[in-house]
Amino acid sequence: MADVVLGIDIGGTSIKAGLFTPDGEILGERKIPTPALVDDMGFSMVTGGLARLLYGYDAKMEDVIACGVDIPAPVAADGSVSMTANVELDPDGLIHALQEAMHNATIACVNDANAATVGEMWRGAAHGVSDFVMIAIGTGVGAGIVSNGQLISGSFGAAGEIGHITVNREETRFCGCGRQGCLEQYASATGIVRLYLETCKARGVTPAAVQHATDTLTVFRALSAGDDCARRAIHQMCEYLGYAMAQISCVCDPELYLIGGGVAGGFASFAPDLRECFMKYALKGCRKARIEAASLGNQAAMFGSAYEALIKRDAHFR
Amino acid sequence: MADVVLGIDIGGTSIKAGLFTPDGEILGERKIPTPALVDDMGFSMVTGGLARLLYGYDAKMEDVIACGVDIPAPVAADGSVSMTANVELDPDGLIHALQEAMHNATIACVNDANAATVGEMWRGAAHGVSDFVMIAIGTGVGAGIVSNGQLISGSFGAAGEIGHITVNREETRFCGCGRQGCLEQYASATGIVRLYLETCKARGVTPAAVQHATDTLTVFRALSAGDDCARRAIHQMCEYLGYAMAQISCVCDPELYLIGGGVAGGFASFAPDLRECFMKYALKGCRKARIEAASLGNQAAMFGSAYEALIKRDAHFR
Repeated sequence: MADVVLGIDIGGTSIKAGLFTPDGEILGERKIPTPALVDDMGFSMVTGGLARLLYGYDAKMEDVIACGVDIPAPVAADGSVSMTANVELDPDGLIHALQEAMHNATIACVNDANAATVGEMWRGAAHGVSDFVMIAIGTGVGAGIVSNGQLISGSFGAAGEIGHITVNREETRFCGCGRQGCLEQYASATGIVRLYLETCKARGVTPAAVQHATDTLTVFRALSAGDDCARRAIHQMCEYLGYAMAQISCVCDPELYLIGGGVAGGFASFAPDLRECFMKYALKGCRKARIEAASLGNQAAMFGSAYEALIKRDAHFR
Repeated sequence: MADVVLGIDIGGTSIKAGLFTPDGEILGERKIPTPALVDDMGFSMVTGGLARLLYGYDAKMEDVIACGVDIPAPVAADGSVSMTANVELDPDGLIHALQEAMHNATIACVNDANAATVGEMWRGAAHGVSDFVMIAIGTGVGAGIVSNGQLISGSFGAAGEIGHITVNREETRFCGCGRQGCLEQYASATGIVRLYLETCKARGVTPAAVQHATDTLTVFRALSAGDDCARRAIHQMCEYLGYAMAQISCVCDPELYLIGGGVAGGFASFAPDLRECFMKYALKGCRKARIEAASLGNQAAMFGSAYEALIKRDAHFR
């Protein structure tokens, strides 16, 4: 069997493993429920799952030349990992177990926020673009920023923390960071749902049946159905996001903004509004920046992990 | 004679040429009044001046292994230069003339805003720092942003245009860019002088004798003399600058901010206030960023031009 590459995305409930050619073509994918990754039992559940994924494509563990693991915790430039809150994880033990199982593979650890950005650059909507910002809108708002083809890593773990750009100095509510008026207070899933419910309340309208604090699906459905409060709430979100993007452009001047994360599902419905808001606030030269949806969805981190491992391997053999 | 390197900084009134060792030690400097750089007469005034600079250090034109020219106009990634407003300049002709005069030298063109940043990284206050922002405060406000040891070049010539970060959404006056409330409206030399005069007027105080629209020297002198309006104006400047820096940190998370440009002369008098304002607005993790004065003064661009030429040479011989 020819050389293959693995990209592993470790989430709180499941591990997604992707099998790739070295050119970035995806051959297959397998989900494994996330075990406690602290001892041999947990590690062998992962390696066993990987072996079965490989088996399905006539590949063996020794065919793997690179294996990237995306970890939901800060990864320092030297590859060391801080402990994480959402997953029971011994990163060193996991890496050791992967290396034992795949003798020929270069193993790399990647931060999960960055992995998706790198994935989009390798085989997604940012393919061939050297200056872009991937904005992930989920419970919070984060970004991966690529300049000159390189991910900006920053000094104190705050690169791409665009959810904490101040967009409303009049805000009285506090953000989780202890400051007030952060982008994340409006443009996250939580923010969108809150803006919607507040708009309904202020206008004395009964809102659509929102299921939970991040249920943007219901808000986007209401928008499609012509709900005026949903339209106003989403416009407010676009105002703040477009404004923040205008500030980002004055710093790193990207050619492309990608919108990813859970909220990207509603992208088509708010893209025209977002583009208009960005144009309104951006410095003239920057208005040419494109705003598009990320294209790899929840596979992005898997792609990115695989790619980072390949890059590490190339650097090693150069 | 051993190998030497030249760094040439082309300004509107004079050309500064610096002679360096390949390690970045400055051997000498020479000023040449800026001629019209459009024909052989102008070009030979430059090469003649360079020959005399070299002669003073027992070096000849053939000893120059790299020569960088910083040009007051946008330089594209391929080295091509757009025309400039403040200097009569044929960049291609100048480069050709330099190459003719120095057969062994790699000639490089650098944008002047970037040259100072690169100079500070090579031999100035940012030496050894891979993530920093060099803020140049003069008539306007611009920045050179370095991430992972590389200058961010951006897509539409707007990287580092931090003077156009919006810091005051209530502003009614227009910035030169056509927008309102830009950092440059407050934190530039023009902005400082205007804030001072406005504060005096609002408080019915006769201002110190400001000589012209960018005479910050008089404002800083008044500050030293205990002028309360100067203190308030400078504090206002620090508020806006610290606020903008807090936003920048959420994007590229630098370890160090350097303050350069004409206003840097007053740095000692406003640094404590600026640090306090930054701390007040910055995301927690970013508060560790240092704020210091740039150290190469008006030699920075000369250093940076020399360094860029060396880098280009290294890339060529690799």
